[in-house]
Amino acid sequence: MPPHELGRPTLASIAAAAGVSLPTVSKVVNGKLDVAPSTRAHVLQLLEEHNYVPVTRKAPTDVLVDVVFTALDSPWAVEILRGVTESGLEVVVSNQSRSSDKDWVQSLIAGGRRGALVVTSRLTAVDQRRLGRSKLPVVVIDPVDMPGQDVPSVGATNWAGGLAATEHLVELGHRRIAVIGGPQDYLCSRARIDGYRAALERAGIAVDPALVRHGTFHHEGGYDQARALLELPDPPTAVFAGSDEQAFGVMEAARQAGLSVPHDLSVVGFDDLPMARWSSPPLTTVRQPLADMGRMAGRMLHELITGGELASQRVELATHLVPRASTAPPRR
Amino acid sequence: MPPHELGRPTLASIAAAAGVSLPTVSKVVNGKLDVAPSTRAHVLQLLEEHNYVPVTRKAPTDVLVDVVFTALDSPWAVEILRGVTESGLEVVVSNQSRSSDKDWVQSLIAGGRRGALVVTSRLTAVDQRRLGRSKLPVVVIDPVDMPGQDVPSVGATNWAGGLAATEHLVELGHRRIAVIGGPQDYLCSRARIDGYRAALERAGIAVDPALVRHGTFHHEGGYDQARALLELPDPPTAVFAGSDEQAFGVMEAARQAGLSVPHDLSVVGFDDLPMARWSSPPLTTVRQPLADMGRMAGRMLHELITGGELASQRVELATHLVPRASTAPPRR
Repeated sequence: MPPHELGRPTLASIAAAAGVSLPTVSKVVNGKLDVAPSTRAHVLQLLEEHNYVPVTRKAPTDVLVDVVFTALDSPWAVEILRGVTESGLEVVVSNQSRSSDKDWVQSLIAGGRRGALVVTSRLTAVDQRRLGRSKLPVVVIDPVDMPGQDVPSVGATNWAGGLAATEHLVELGHRRIAVIGGPQDYLCSRARIDGYRAALERAGIAVDPALVRHGTFHHEGGYDQARALLELPDPPTAVFAGSDEQAFGVMEAARQAGLSVPHDLSVVGFDDLPMARWSSPPLTTVRQPLADMGRMAGRMLHELITGGELASQRVELATHLVPRASTAPPRR
Repeated sequence: MPPHELGRPTLASIAAAAGVSLPTVSKVVNGKLDVAPSTRAHVLQLLEEHNYVPVTRKAPTDVLVDVVFTALDSPWAVEILRGVTESGLEVVVSNQSRSSDKDWVQSLIAGGRRGALVVTSRLTAVDQRRLGRSKLPVVVIDPVDMPGQDVPSVGATNWAGGLAATEHLVELGHRRIAVIGGPQDYLCSRARIDGYRAALERAGIAVDPALVRHGTFHHEGGYDQARALLELPDPPTAVFAGSDEQAFGVMEAARQAGLSVPHDLSVVGFDDLPMARWSSPPLTTVRQPLADMGRMAGRMLHELITGGELASQRVELATHLVPRASTAPPRR
C-alpha cells in the first residue's frame, strides 16, 4: 500500500514503500553518506511524493547564522531557503545581489554570527580569500557551480542528471538530440554536457558539434540557441535544455516557429523548479533536490559550529528524471 | 533619452523619464503616501525597468526582526523577501507553513525580537489574538487577503487590478469574458471580481453568471474552471484568471482542448510572478509590486519599533497591467 493511503507518512511507511530498512530511510533523512546513490534518490523521491514532515527539532539556542544570497531573485532561492529553515538553524537572510563589491564576510563577523550558508552562482576569488581569513564556519550551496575544494559545499549530481535526461530522449527514439549548456566555464554545465555525450555514446549515436550549444542558463539563452538550432538544415527533434529557464525559452522559440511541443520538438529541463509543473505542456525535467540541499548544508554548518568534523567537504545529492508532457517519440 | 542609455540610472534620470519632479520620485522610493497612484505606478515601473539600485542604508543596529512566512513555498515569498531585505532591516526568516498550530508569536517574544513581519495568506483568529496580546510591533504583508483593521498591513489595489485586466480584454474586442476568482471568502478575490464587473458594466456588457467562477488561486483551480468554461454551449473568448498560477492552469486546459492562446482564447493573470515572462506565450498579467510591498512593510515596522506613528494602518500599493503575448483580439 503506498504511504499516502496510510494517512500521515512515517519513516516506517516510507521504508516499506521503498523496500528498504528503516535505518536506511533514517540515514537518508539525516543526510548520512553511507547509502547507495540510487537508494537515496528513491527514498528522497518517496519522502517528497508523500510529503513526509520531519519531526520539528528545537532550534539550537544561540545558533543564529546568516544565509547569504548573491541572487535572491533566482528562482531556486526560495526552495533552498525552505530546506535551510527546516534544518533547525535560525537564519538571518542577506541579499548581496546588488552590492557584490561589499565585504559581506566582514559584516557577518561584525554581526556576531556563528556561521554562514552562502548561496551563490559564483564565489569570487576575493570572496574565497575573505572566507578563508575569517575562520567563520561556512558552507556553500551551489546549484550551478562548485567552489574550491577547501570550502565545504553541497551540490547535485550534474553528470548523472545530464545522462538521465539524454537517455530518456534516446529511449523515446530520438537520434538528433541537441544540448544547451550554461556558460562554458561553469563546471556544472560541463558535467551536464558530459552526461549528454555519455548517453549518446552508449547508444552508438555520434555527437554532432552543431547540436552542442552554450547559453546563459537563463530564458534568453534557451530562446536564442533554440532559434539557431531550429534553423539548421537538419534540425534536432529533441533538446536537453540544461536548465528549466532555458527549457522555457526553447518552448517559446518552438511556439514562435509554429512547432508543437512535444510532437514536433521534445524538451527536457534541469532543476525542477516549482513552475516546471505549470508550463504548458508541463515540463519533463531533471530534479535537483534544492530543499534537501538546503537542509543538508544546514546540518553541515551546525556540525562545523559545534566543533564536529564533516564526513566530506563536498556532498552531491542525487538528481532524478521527472517525466511530464514535454517529451514524446519523434514524428519522423 | 530613456534612463538605461545614460548608464546607471539615478533618481534624476528616472524623474526626467517619468516627466515628474525629483522630489516626487524620491517620495515614491521612500514609500511616502502623498503621490497620486498612477504617478506612483509609473515611477515604480520605470525604477524597475531601469533596475534602479538604491543606495544601501546601514541596517539599524539591534533591529533584528522576524519575517514569518506561513507558506514559504509560495511563489511570491521570495519577491517579498527581497523587498524586505532592501528596507534596511536585518531579518530572521521563519517558515510556519508546516506547524500552524504552534504559538509562533510566543517564540518571537522568547527570541528577543524587536518586531515581526508576517507574510500570510490567512491570519487565523487565534494568531490575531496572540499578536494583540503580545504588544510586539507587527506588520502583515498579504497578497491575497486583508487582516482585521487593527493590524497594520500592506496589500495591493485588487479592485483596480481587476478593472484594468478586464478593460484590456474589452478594448481588444472581447464580449464573452470569463473571470476565475479565488476562494469565495477571500476579500481580495471579491475585489478583483468586482473590478471585472465594473469594467463590463462600463462597457455596457451584461455580466453572465455562468462566466463568473471561483477557483483556489492555484494551478488546478484555473485548470478545472477553464475546462468547465470551455465546455459551455457559448464558451468565452477570454479569461481573466485571477492569479498567475490560475492563468497557467487555463493555458494548459486550452492546450489540451486544442485551442491556441491567444488566437482562440485570451488569458490574463494577476501577480506578475517572475515566471509570467517565461510561459509560452508570455503572460499578460496585472502586476502586484511584491518587492515594493516588502520594502514598504519593512519601513512601517521600523517606524513602529522606533516609536513613530503610522500614517495609515492599511497601505495598498498600485497594481498595473503588463501586456504580453497571451491576449489578442477575438477571432469571431
